[in-house]
Amino acid sequence: MAQTSAQPLRIGIAGLGTVGIGIAKILIGSADLLAARGARPLVLTAVSSRDASKNRGVDLSPFAWETDARALAARDDVDVVVETIGGDGIAKELVELALANGKAVVTANKALLAVHGADLAQLADKNSAPLAYEAAVAGGIPAIKSVREGLAANRYQRVYGILNGTCNYILTAMTQEGSDFGAVLARAQELGYAELDPTFDVDGIDAAHKLAILASLAFGCQLDFDAIDISGIRSVTATDIQLADKLGYVIKLVAMAHPVLSGDRPEIAQWVRPCLVPKTSAIGSVNGVNNAVIAEGDFVGQVMISGPGAGEGATASAVVADLLDLARGRQNDVLGIPAGDLQATTSPTAWQQAEAAFYLRFSVSDQPGVLATITKALADAGISVASAVQLPSGNDAHVSLTLTTHSSSWARLLPVLDDLNSHDFVHEPVVSLQILEA
Amino acid sequence: MAQTSAQPLRIGIAGLGTVGIGIAKILIGSADLLAARGARPLVLTAVSSRDASKNRGVDLSPFAWETDARALAARDDVDVVVETIGGDGIAKELVELALANGKAVVTANKALLAVHGADLAQLADKNSAPLAYEAAVAGGIPAIKSVREGLAANRYQRVYGILNGTCNYILTAMTQEGSDFGAVLARAQELGYAELDPTFDVDGIDAAHKLAILASLAFGCQLDFDAIDISGIRSVTATDIQLADKLGYVIKLVAMAHPVLSGDRPEIAQWVRPCLVPKTSAIGSVNGVNNAVIAEGDFVGQVMISGPGAGEGATASAVVADLLDLARGRQNDVLGIPAGDLQATTSPTAWQQAEAAFYLRFSVSDQPGVLATITKALADAGISVASAVQLPSGNDAHVSLTLTTHSSSWARLLPVLDDLNSHDFVHEPVVSLQILEA
Repeated sequence: MAQTSAQPLRIGIAGLGTVGIGIAKILIGSADLLAARGARPLVLTAVSSRDASKNRGVDLSPFAWETDARALAARDDVDVVVETIGGDGIAKELVELALANGKAVVTANKALLAVHGADLAQLADKNSAPLAYEAAVAGGIPAIKSVREGLAANRYQRVYGILNGTCNYILTAMTQEGSDFGAVLARAQELGYAELDPTFDVDGIDAAHKLAILASLAFGCQLDFDAIDISGIRSVTATDIQLADKLGYVIKLVAMAHPVLSGDRPEIAQWVRPCLVPKTSAIGSVNGVNNAVIAEGDFVGQVMISGPGAGEGATASAVVADLLDLARGRQNDVLGIPAGDLQATTSPTAWQQAEAAFYLRFSVSDQPGVLATITKALADAGISVASAVQLPSGNDAHVSLTLTTHSSSWARLLPVLDDLNSHDFVHEPVVSLQILEA
Repeated sequence: MAQTSAQPLRIGIAGLGTVGIGIAKILIGSADLLAARGARPLVLTAVSSRDASKNRGVDLSPFAWETDARALAARDDVDVVVETIGGDGIAKELVELALANGKAVVTANKALLAVHGADLAQLADKNSAPLAYEAAVAGGIPAIKSVREGLAANRYQRVYGILNGTCNYILTAMTQEGSDFGAVLARAQELGYAELDPTFDVDGIDAAHKLAILASLAFGCQLDFDAIDISGIRSVTATDIQLADKLGYVIKLVAMAHPVLSGDRPEIAQWVRPCLVPKTSAIGSVNGVNNAVIAEGDFVGQVMISGPGAGEGATASAVVADLLDLARGRQNDVLGIPAGDLQATTSPTAWQQAEAAFYLRFSVSDQPGVLATITKALADAGISVASAVQLPSGNDAHVSLTLTTHSSSWARLLPVLDDLNSHDFVHEPVVSLQILEA
């Protein structure tokens, strides 16, 4: 089609860390390419950061400078505010001011969207202002666009993935080297793959932020971070990784959303937790710092998109893709449908109702009747054992018992675990990991 | 954003085979979902096929019927013509008529686009009529959208993939079972994964059709099917698969496009051929009938998208995704930039100039000096040997010699192969396969 407008798209970048500078580099260095693909020039007009004197490796002198990012929202020469500040202080104020002024906003701020996305989507709708966030989920991978547009002919059955590169790096290294969590974390910190305070990543919070956004988009449910059940990877042991390997599985931190019936009510189960996935599955082959999103639809079947989930270049690539959409006038509702039509169908315990098979590892006394007690407790709850391996442990008086189950549910399993953990013959809390059909 | 238009998007489907019927099923069965995601109703108004009396499992009585598909292009109640007829007869006429009338066209017809896409893109531009074809490349995978939009902030370094499910099924089965091509092809034909005349698939033509489209989109080169160097999988043997396995590789039919300098002139190398790819690479883990597209960009790095490359549901899913784009008014140039701006930078021999490493297998006489002659011929051409394994063959007088090389090029290798193949001590033409850094 002929270009509908030669008016440039004027861009203001708030925050000049590595991502903000990465975006500036693309806009400046690939200007001709972007003008061709966007059907009009994408022009950086203003930037904002506190310290104008710092050398950032890019000549920013041609652009207006604001020390207060919020001023970008009021500038007449800014059509789109790109928010790369992070957090929910100034960043949130800036996004709200820009949307209220009818300006488009592009952000990579998953924490902001996960917690305040429902309100921000309403605000964007009210002001007919686009709010785009490809970079907020799975970094450089066009996961948002694929779920919102590329696969949108489908009713989604499951949307899940590996949404935190730090955790995937750690679990991959533990698997390949047989190392323990602590040792690999320390190295990941040295290499810059993990923060000094790794809580946000290894406890699953970052993955859950991204999941909240994906789930809302895929299932039309209200964005609800608090409804997500979250477990991280601190408790994953080299022992469990090795046992999983013998069974044909690898352990991954999986972020999952899918519909489930809670009583008669359809709800969207959302959880983040370490799972056993088949080694030969698509998700099982995603290693290192890579991320992946798998979408399963009623017509298309299973599609996976994988690649770099973080980093300056990958994040900047996703932000500029959003800018190209804006340049082209490619229209979207923030969460795929009007914010007012999103259904509040997530409850914090919906995940317990879903069908699931389990890997269970017991460290128990080597005495008669223990195996019988365990298997009877499972059978009484209607949980059927698929495989069992009993091995001597290092301690003469203990044995290690590993069971896998046929399909059941957390709702059935959790009371059994509570019961078994109360027995004296159980020496450590039972390790329970979901086995994912992938 | 608020809905900009409640006017329905009115759709006519030409061709009522499995794909056409699949599209009708989605439009009818998921009407509410599509109206929400498309911001207006997607309404089927007319269909076309020769035989109106056939039972196709869907009630088509509410829709206007045309026995001549070309009539859809003239109907006032059709905004978009969906072409699922195939071939370049009536299908081509229909697409041309519809575009000339300013109607949008959605097609899954890769053969039509690969051969006539350049002209059709010009026609679409001239009439400001959208021409969409997500389903034409890699079936249900949103590969076109990812390359055109999701990763469009990047200059692409390579775009490649597994673009034919039949070949990938056959190679996967040969790898897993140690079987020969002929035996697996026969089974694939029984299972419906291969046509009775498999030429189109196993000789690489179908993959090349798709590659021509992808390459034009990614690199802004003129669509030029004739410039693609094509080899299929008929000559891949169980022996080479097993030797590759020992070296850490798996053999895949790779379709590749990337820039290369031919003299001083930048050209786009385009080829389809069996390659050795690392078992642990992203593309190496794509098995069975699945397809995959890998895009490497200067900012994002490597992104892979994989999933079902064919089938009624997957193809229909991709067509309806295009319809949702049209409903939303999401605008695109047919090949990413205006058709008149595409550069004619492909030559049929550009691929010979690219850097490449090789796997070479010789069946030679067991006599002194043979190894010396071979290695000297390679050395004289500046090709450095990376590994060598000599094994006795079944025949006492012959040995099997397998070499891998360091990075070189086909331009250097081809004259060496011509020379060596002329020697009496070479009993079978030398097997030469490219080793892909993936």
